Amino acid sequence: MGLLGGSVTLAILRSLSGVKTIGYSHRPSTRKKARLLAVAHEIASDLYQSVKGSDLVILATPIYTFEKTFGEIADSLANGAIVTDVGSTKVLPHRWAAKHLPKGTHYVGSHPIAGSEQRGVEFARDDLFEGADCILTKTPNTNASALAKLKKFWSALGCSVKVMTPGRHDKIFANVSHIPHVTAAALVNATKSDELKFAGKGFIDTSRVASGPANIWADIILANAKNLNAGIDKITNELAKLKKAVNTGKRNHLEKLLNSARQKRTKMIRYKINKKEVIP
Amino acid sequence: MGLLGGSVTLAILRSLSGVKTIGYSHRPSTRKKARLLAVAHEIASDLYQSVKGSDLVILATPIYTFEKTFGEIADSLANGAIVTDVGSTKVLPHRWAAKHLPKGTHYVGSHPIAGSEQRGVEFARDDLFEGADCILTKTPNTNASALAKLKKFWSALGCSVKVMTPGRHDKIFANVSHIPHVTAAALVNATKSDELKFAGKGFIDTSRVASGPANIWADIILANAKNLNAGIDKITNELAKLKKAVNTGKRNHLEKLLNSARQKRTKMIRYKINKKEVIP
Repeated sequence: MGLLGGSVTLAILRSLSGVKTIGYSHRPSTRKKARLLAVAHEIASDLYQSVKGSDLVILATPIYTFEKTFGEIADSLANGAIVTDVGSTKVLPHRWAAKHLPKGTHYVGSHPIAGSEQRGVEFARDDLFEGADCILTKTPNTNASALAKLKKFWSALGCSVKVMTPGRHDKIFANVSHIPHVTAAALVNATKSDELKFAGKGFIDTSRVASGPANIWADIILANAKNLNAGIDKITNELAKLKKAVNTGKRNHLEKLLNSARQKRTKMIRYKINKKEVIP
Repeated sequence: MGLLGGSVTLAILRSLSGVKTIGYSHRPSTRKKARLLAVAHEIASDLYQSVKGSDLVILATPIYTFEKTFGEIADSLANGAIVTDVGSTKVLPHRWAAKHLPKGTHYVGSHPIAGSEQRGVEFARDDLFEGADCILTKTPNTNASALAKLKKFWSALGCSVKVMTPGRHDKIFANVSHIPHVTAAALVNATKSDELKFAGKGFIDTSRVASGPANIWADIILANAKNLNAGIDKITNELAKLKKAVNTGKRNHLEKLLNSARQKRTKMIRYKINKKEVIP
């Protein structure tokens, strides 16, 4: 029951009126906040009770907590239960689910591309998934009916659903999400605090994601280490190209590199506008 | 008469009602747009006529055009005229002004920390400078009365004015503005177009400045080459630290690096909120 977990139940309350929601947190303070904000029909203080008899169980913790949780809930899951998560990497969750979840239950990975640099159930919103992409991940062992149900579920919450393998997912999101995060952190760390007083809107936007919770992002980054490694090399290489153009004073070359970024980004924004994704 | 030039005259029209404004552009199409949008009292098609008799002349072109323009307007400037600019680097403009502007005229550098990734007079806004910082740059040769007048001018347009040397300015803004630009460009260039379709709000924000006009940014970056060089090294070094933490799987170290960025950015945002700068 954090920003994402709370937003899922709030979105269900808004869009799927017949569905009963149960939220769980191991923290009493979070459960108290979740009850005050009424983010779910019921806020359970017992993990096993919270998943018992549920048709759909959604993990919304830091990624490296999934393995333990899969093991803990295994015995309480109903036959036919669908288990998913909202984690930002998918290879490891699939591996852990295959290892710990019992036969007769069905794991499918979910990654709704929504959230913010905020954390905590007090930032949960019932419209967080409206217009967002949601990637579902499947392997050759994924149950087709469970996948179809989960597609309907996220679509009902306002998502545009895409399906891919966990491997492809992790590669793409290393590049469009985890590397930008690492880069934003590097940018802030490279800048002195007394210089940051002069930062304008450009720096504020460029660095926004670096305000995301460090424990959750450490999990994401380590769970996608191989792709992160390659991605950091790529961006370092692009920086080296720009540095070379600066140091040799090759204006044409520098302008070409900047223009290439500009045009590529414009193409991306156009694609998003055509898809009617909200543009900030 | 682009985004910045047009915004200066619009802001004058709003806040300094007794002042007559003359805009100039060498492009007939820009002059036509500027006239249609009525961004200044008069839109001149002759550079010399546009500065003749003016108390204050403000250059708002790409930086490397300043030197030529200083030379071109030198003979038309009134005695006592103040010349400034809105360029993002200040060392070179001071050098060129000292070389080309006649005695009896006074150059002071201005850098209003405002703008956007858009370009063109059609994006000019009369409130662009409201609540923005404006850095004025001075050397031991700067005329104190001209500096005082310019302080009053930018304050009247809504800016919070700070004064520093051109050298300090260029170092600070390499780190808080030019390096973020270069990093955003590297980020986009390092990512494939078909992957960018999956970009979320994080990538869109992190890369926004990369949509800025390439010619203007090539000028800024080349005019601040030495600081850019050092800045690219610093961010590359921070990326290498993060990569090492990822590859050695040192979770504590990775989380420490991410947390340091998070805390530093929070401190920056708190400073801006206390200063009542607008936060996006």
